[in-house]
Amino acid sequence: MPQNLFSDLPESLPDEVTTVLHEGHGGRVERIVSLGHRSPDGFWYDQPEDEWVMVLKGAARLEFEGSFVELRAGDSITIPAHQKHRVAWTTPDEPTVWLAVFFGG
Amino acid sequence: MPQNLFSDLPESLPDEVTTVLHEGHGGRVERIVSLGHRSPDGFWYDQPEDEWVMVLKGAARLEFEGSFVELRAGDSITIPAHQKHRVAWTTPDEPTVWLAVFFGG
Repeated sequence: MPQNLFSDLPESLPDEVTTVLHEGHGGRVERIVSLGHRSPDGFWYDQPEDEWVMVLKGAARLEFEGSFVELRAGDSITIPAHQKHRVAWTTPDEPTVWLAVFFGG
Repeated sequence: MPQNLFSDLPESLPDEVTTVLHEGHGGRVERIVSLGHRSPDGFWYDQPEDEWVMVLKGAARLEFEGSFVELRAGDSITIPAHQKHRVAWTTPDEPTVWLAVFFGG
């Protein structure tokens, strides 16, 4: 049966909520729901896997070392393995729904 | 720079249009735009890769051997490698935008 990515959005979001939609040989697909969440100051993701990420709803700002990328609904970007990045901002007034695909691992 | 999946929708769609959004170690991500397209009668996809697919916009009906699955915007489903399937229907009056992730291969 299909899983709908816009259904069952958490009503309360003290923390980001991650749901694994698919996991198997070759990688996994996650839905991440944020509400004003951002990475802690000084924290950088440094992942062993290539990540392809899209904003389905809401908006966000990713920070790379030396640059920022704004993502609106529909925007997607590839984050190569070990490219340091952090979430600098997500919409505080409505949930931001991310779709993240991790390859390998 | 981000790629927006709702931008640059083809104006004319005599055939489905597939855009590779990411390809690398572990798999690839494709956007597929349909407009009333369906698989030819008797045609079945039989893929060596696991596929995770989502309808971003529009609606579609997938056929499996012995069953149908309706997909509305936001719906996602995993199609395991070698599970035979075909596209039985897509919206004829507006484009259906698919996001398809293929793992392995």
